[in-house]
Amino acid sequence: MSLSLAAIVEALGGELRGSPEREVARLASLETATPADISFLVPNPKLAGLLAQTQAGCIIVAPAMQEAAGARGDCIVASDPYLYFARLTQLWKRTHLPPEPAGIHPSAVVEEGAQVHPAARVGALCFVGSGARIGAHTVLRERVTVASGCTIGERCLIESGAVIGGDGFGFAPHQGQWVKIEQLGGVRIGNDVEIGANTCIDRGALDDTVIEDGVKLDNLIQIGHNTHIGAHTAMAGCVGVAGSARIGAHCTVGGAGMILGHLDIADHVHISAASMVARSITKPGQYTGFFPIDDNAAWEKNAASLKHLHALRERVRQLEKKLAENGDNARLSG
Amino acid sequence: MSLSLAAIVEALGGELRGSPEREVARLASLETATPADISFLVPNPKLAGLLAQTQAGCIIVAPAMQEAAGARGDCIVASDPYLYFARLTQLWKRTHLPPEPAGIHPSAVVEEGAQVHPAARVGALCFVGSGARIGAHTVLRERVTVASGCTIGERCLIESGAVIGGDGFGFAPHQGQWVKIEQLGGVRIGNDVEIGANTCIDRGALDDTVIEDGVKLDNLIQIGHNTHIGAHTAMAGCVGVAGSARIGAHCTVGGAGMILGHLDIADHVHISAASMVARSITKPGQYTGFFPIDDNAAWEKNAASLKHLHALRERVRQLEKKLAENGDNARLSG
Amino acid sequence: MSLSLAAIVEALGGELRGSPEREVARLASLETATPADISFLVPNPKLAGLLAQTQAGCIIVAPAMQEAAGARGDCIVASDPYLYFARLTQLWKRTHLPPEPAGIHPSAVVEEGAQVHPAARVGALCFVGSGARIGAHTVLRERVTVASGCTIGERCLIESGAVIGGDGFGFAPHQGQWVKIEQLGGVRIGNDVEIGANTCIDRGALDDTVIEDGVKLDNLIQIGHNTHIGAHTAMAGCVGVAGSARIGAHCTVGGAGMILGHLDIADHVHISAASMVARSITKPGQYTGFFPIDDNAAWEKNAASLKHLHALRERVRQLEKKLAENGDNARLSG
Repeated sequence: MSLSLAAIVEALGGELRGSPEREVARLASLETATPADISFLVPNPKLAGLLAQTQAGCIIVAPAMQEAAGARGDCIVASDPYLYFARLTQLWKRTHLPPEPAGIHPSAVVEEGAQVHPAARVGALCFVGSGARIGAHTVLRERVTVASGCTIGERCLIESGAVIGGDGFGFAPHQGQWVKIEQLGGVRIGNDVEIGANTCIDRGALDDTVIEDGVKLDNLIQIGHNTHIGAHTAMAGCVGVAGSARIGAHCTVGGAGMILGHLDIADHVHISAASMVARSITKPGQYTGFFPIDDNAAWEKNAASLKHLHALRERVRQLEKKLAENGDNARLSG
Repeated sequence: MSLSLAAIVEALGGELRGSPEREVARLASLETATPADISFLVPNPKLAGLLAQTQAGCIIVAPAMQEAAGARGDCIVASDPYLYFARLTQLWKRTHLPPEPAGIHPSAVVEEGAQVHPAARVGALCFVGSGARIGAHTVLRERVTVASGCTIGERCLIESGAVIGGDGFGFAPHQGQWVKIEQLGGVRIGNDVEIGANTCIDRGALDDTVIEDGVKLDNLIQIGHNTHIGAHTAMAGCVGVAGSARIGAHCTVGGAGMILGHLDIADHVHISAASMVARSITKPGQYTGFFPIDDNAAWEKNAASLKHLHALRERVRQLEKKLAENGDNARLSG
Repeated sequence: MSLSLAAIVEALGGELRGSPEREVARLASLETATPADISFLVPNPKLAGLLAQTQAGCIIVAPAMQEAAGARGDCIVASDPYLYFARLTQLWKRTHLPPEPAGIHPSAVVEEGAQVHPAARVGALCFVGSGARIGAHTVLRERVTVASGCTIGERCLIESGAVIGGDGFGFAPHQGQWVKIEQLGGVRIGNDVEIGANTCIDRGALDDTVIEDGVKLDNLIQIGHNTHIGAHTAMAGCVGVAGSARIGAHCTVGGAGMILGHLDIADHVHISAASMVARSITKPGQYTGFFPIDDNAAWEKNAASLKHLHALRERVRQLEKKLAENGDNARLSG
């Protein structure tokens, strides 16, 4: 299980400074790499010191670092070392790990009327409902649900336990009880989408819930009915998006971020972890809202004061007024 | 696939103003409806303008809107258009979608000693443990777990991936380690309950965890052991309820709301999204607690100041004192 | 279905004050116990009053309470009543509930090359990938995924729906799109670990994600790739841990706590529920950070003021300055 530097550069490009015949046994971070391993250095001046400390046998570096890296041993020069490294993990997987073959696992349940492309893979113990469509080269790992009438594009990866097409959460209140609104829409997922383990994407009430091309969703995310997520938006674990939110393209949402329903998020908006979006956001940028953690005693005092913040602001206003009056009086009497 | 207005009114009541023979091809929102579709207008003055813009072939309206709606085309007059619409989705499902037939899917695992009512449905790849009971007309979608000794009432809907009856989280600390408290209770779920995809309801430690009639739980919700949820309470996605909480009837909890254990929530309490309940709430009302989102730079400054809020309050107190003394001095010397 | 007090003391030790031949029919809390039940009293002066009210036939008490407890009826004296009770639940389970027999359920899918210890149990509809290893006396409940190359130690309990070894969430940005970093590491779980329902533990990017001995994770928890969780740490439901976090031993994290990636948490750190950890924590202690809940109107006013807190602090600074100047002026002119 190894790759020669020559084979790497042949497959991925980049300029090799060092021995083409060197074999690397493992991909590793700079901190844990041994002389048998290949690693990478992102072009960050703060990390330049790692170059002197790492034991890595070969390092992928940016052109600006090639002298320093070359002086210590083998390196591959690439314009974007992190991207190069990503592609190296893909090369490694192709050459070292068993493929995930196309086809439907015998333990999966695929209902009549579902269309699974022959080049797609439906893993063990999956369920694919009638009328669902799964595109070419898409992989459903194990125990995935794709309910009836939902469509998934090409080259998607759906992790274990994900549920695509559960009922949206819709009820009309009536005399203290809830009357179900049947969810008649579906879920439409584009190409190159990744959906994490145990993540849920609800079907729409009337129209479809839509996930555009290239969206990446981490684990345990809840996407409410009729949400629209723009292309290449990425969300970290535990995020919740309520119904009918319209989220732009190229956005990111940090872990446990929460987006309320029926609002619009522009393209290129970045929501920090643990932040709650209760209004539409029309301008690109980074948005944050969480209570900073503190030792418990300090938090208790500040949280208690927070309950009086509005009153405190009023008290400051009064002080300002009084002081201004005093000043006027002083001037008048001066 | 269509329904005539006559058939709708015959099934659901309401007063038809227009052509009974008109066929509607789809249920749609006012914004997306075409002349072939039926839509609804909730009686909200802010939305009255939609009436002029929508292309819908028929609109369900409240009596107060019947003149305006009738002037533009066909309408159905109903006292509660949203409720009428909910029932129309149910009619549509009954008449247009394949039924979810009763019975146990051959891929499901139902242990000996489980009691599944013949009119219940156990979907593909479900697990029902020994001693569990599932009532009439209850539907387990796919890949649901109902562990041994748990009971589910009638007309419930359990979405894919839900886990009913996992062990509650209970341990006694001992010399730096955790000794398991076996969870000997079960889960008791009433009638007309809906439980979302990948939601978890833990079995009780000694007594049962109880979900009363008509409760609606969205996806990815965690209900701790020995929790008691009163009738017709509804919770949105990503909510967490810790152990032994006692939540009243007719409550709502917004997405990612968090309720600590061993506390009581009165009936008719509404918890906003992303809010954390750390004490019992004895009075009906709306309760909220989350840090308002802001652009990141503004948040950083305010969050940093928040760590000094208690001290700031003390400083304001000092200022007030000093100013009062100055005033007294002024008066004394005046 | 009962146990005699003699049998309990014989199995678990402790000093019986009362009738050895008394049979207990149920374990119960003090509040719900009947004369046929056994209960326990933790040594908390606040709870001593419960002793007079409970109907329990026998109570497990600490030595300090033995006189009071003995005066009202049968009791078992144990140095740590809660620990004794935990062991009693285990005894009860062993003697009253059907065992969870070792072996692989016929509906489970275990790939070639997986190593399942003959004394382990793989429940219904589980998936165990090639190269995965499951140790002796470990139980996978139903519908668990253990992906290829992941290892689980001995005496672990994995609840229904858990996903061990999904891909970590790693992408390199490239021209507005995301290029996948294949996740080549695995998950290594120690002995005596408990993992809750629908909890997800991602495989590492290069190295393994590591969960040390005795860790207890509740339901719906997300553990990112390359996280390291120290021995005997416990986390409540809905917690999220981002990638490459390094969490110490003997820590606790309350429900919905959130820990960002690439940071270190020392041993014996306790994070409160709903608190967000955005920096490393180097000292043991309790840490908290959430916005205190309030009635909605009060919250709205305080939250609005919070957006001006930094400015408010500046205004207080100005007031202090002015007041100090006035004082100086007064003294100068005095």
